[in-house]
Amino acid sequence: MSSEPPRQGLDYRSAGVDIDAAEDALDRIKPAIRATFGRRVVADVGSFGGLFRADDLGREPVLVATTDGVGTKTRIAAASGRFDTVGRDLVQHCINDALVQGAEPLFFLDYVGVGRLRPERVAALIGGVAAACRDHGVALLGGETAEMPGVYPEDEFDLVGTLVGVVEREAVIDGGRVEAGDVLIGLPSVGLHTNGYSLARRIVEERMGLGWDDPFPGAAGATAAEVLLAPHACYLEALRPFLRDPALHALAHITGGGLAGNLPRVLNGLGARVARSAVPPLNVFEQLVAAGGVERDEAWRAFNMGVGMVLVVAAEEADRIEADLAEADRRPFRLGEVTGPGPGVSWLD
Amino acid sequence: MSSEPPRQGLDYRSAGVDIDAAEDALDRIKPAIRATFGRRVVADVGSFGGLFRADDLGREPVLVATTDGVGTKTRIAAASGRFDTVGRDLVQHCINDALVQGAEPLFFLDYVGVGRLRPERVAALIGGVAAACRDHGVALLGGETAEMPGVYPEDEFDLVGTLVGVVEREAVIDGGRVEAGDVLIGLPSVGLHTNGYSLARRIVEERMGLGWDDPFPGAAGATAAEVLLAPHACYLEALRPFLRDPALHALAHITGGGLAGNLPRVLNGLGARVARSAVPPLNVFEQLVAAGGVERDEAWRAFNMGVGMVLVVAAEEADRIEADLAEADRRPFRLGEVTGPGPGVSWLD
Repeated sequence: MSSEPPRQGLDYRSAGVDIDAAEDALDRIKPAIRATFGRRVVADVGSFGGLFRADDLGREPVLVATTDGVGTKTRIAAASGRFDTVGRDLVQHCINDALVQGAEPLFFLDYVGVGRLRPERVAALIGGVAAACRDHGVALLGGETAEMPGVYPEDEFDLVGTLVGVVEREAVIDGGRVEAGDVLIGLPSVGLHTNGYSLARRIVEERMGLGWDDPFPGAAGATAAEVLLAPHACYLEALRPFLRDPALHALAHITGGGLAGNLPRVLNGLGARVARSAVPPLNVFEQLVAAGGVERDEAWRAFNMGVGMVLVVAAEEADRIEADLAEADRRPFRLGEVTGPGPGVSWLD
Repeated sequence: MSSEPPRQGLDYRSAGVDIDAAEDALDRIKPAIRATFGRRVVADVGSFGGLFRADDLGREPVLVATTDGVGTKTRIAAASGRFDTVGRDLVQHCINDALVQGAEPLFFLDYVGVGRLRPERVAALIGGVAAACRDHGVALLGGETAEMPGVYPEDEFDLVGTLVGVVEREAVIDGGRVEAGDVLIGLPSVGLHTNGYSLARRIVEERMGLGWDDPFPGAAGATAAEVLLAPHACYLEALRPFLRDPALHALAHITGGGLAGNLPRVLNGLGARVARSAVPPLNVFEQLVAAGGVERDEAWRAFNMGVGMVLVVAAEEADRIEADLAEADRRPFRLGEVTGPGPGVSWLD
């Protein structure tokens, strides 16, 4: 005696998607989003598209647009339950990417994909995005939160951002003036920024045997999560005084691929010689490289190793620019110089 | 007698990230990306940010920006091994979102997050994005592909896009002129577009018991994957002739939340009466609703149910606009009308 069990009708919630939760998350963060609106934002939160007035952006304005994520840094945020920092990472990373072409940021849009939508977590994530936008004068013009069971495991998420900035056409920094003999000035990173996390996580978990709340070696009591979640530095304020300086020939943001992967992108086909010993060492990299037994060249490919941004400047103006940066407490260091035609970066040490 | 096994040094690839695979994917699609560049794109593929000339965009240009994904439609693409269609979904969805505020699309950026980066799949995904961009005159200005083991299961991926368009300030469509008595004209969808996939997938797999290569009932031999992956319709070309028409008071793109979730967003606080029987039925919804035992109101919340876009037009001009749309073979149908102050949509049937 068996009978087929009664079949309930399916609904969207039983399929893993909760539309109310998405609206709840949005309601929590509307004030923080509105606080980023400057005079140019026309429509309110919740429109199909964000509206941004683009009159008088300049004489020959060029929009600079960039999209990126924060990599598997999200996994540390998820594992340690700290959702309020990676939004800042994302905004500051994108600002740097637009900055290297000379652009001031205008507006930003975010996307959060999650396995299960927990309004308080999404609110913390987007709250971090909104706070960073506000700090740098960027309008948080739009965003989307998508609950995608199966695409993401229940507690994982991805965070993606798009930034649009503007630069006068004659002020675009494109590396076209880079020449042999130009000097490379580095600015320090504050840690991994948003690259190398798959490797770093594996070292912390498997080789160092640390939980995310354990103290990280040599970090004055900071936990592994705190050290690895240190937000991506933003170089906008440090570099703004130099964006129209004719001696600034190029800027390279050191992200995935490290110094050797990013610097050649702006060298106009030329090569570079770099002294790795010139970079002030950061404890986090020393610990990770030692514990992971990571080969030196591999470490410089997976991590920024302490260099967040590189300025390529005319040799005769290098002392002046370096002094100005030091004066403003930006802690510049002289990394090396541009050589003849490529290929890429050669290490001096 | 045991000894600790020798520990190998870790590298980025052993941690699940293959930088070469990302570069390989990019190389495959560069020509398709360049083919989308119009006269306004300044820099080439591979710059830190995409550059887009924004001079003479209009007298008082307003940028309209929107970011979105394609939901768990990605899971059907992954499960059925068809990676060339969801890119078009994404572009056309975003074009519609900007269109409802009156905007012509300018440029697009994509983001692909994957568990394991397989260059041929990423190339197919972005190839679909590029083809749709080209069809609609949109520059594919930038993008990012991120390999994120653990955030995504190995064969899953997410696809996110950001579109920026432009509209003259005086031509922004914001629903401000919507009034009681305005007529609602619907335009047909071609299927689920990009919403309701978590529910649809569950019905197909659990209730209909279909594999993705099995014929879908009532679909003239098309497989379940083909029916469910039908690309999101684009309404740009259909609606372009009406964007400056003073009788067009608002546009609603029917996405997540269905007709009742999207139409009220543009009704200026007013309500609407809608005749569901006016919508030409689509086989895919009839099959899904029947097999899933989905309640009628729930179905209209989870799915677009055959309505992809709604025009809100002045009553006295409704016949003219409907006739013009029919003449252009856009298959309009009269859905209902705007009523007094809210709340939301009431169903006439």
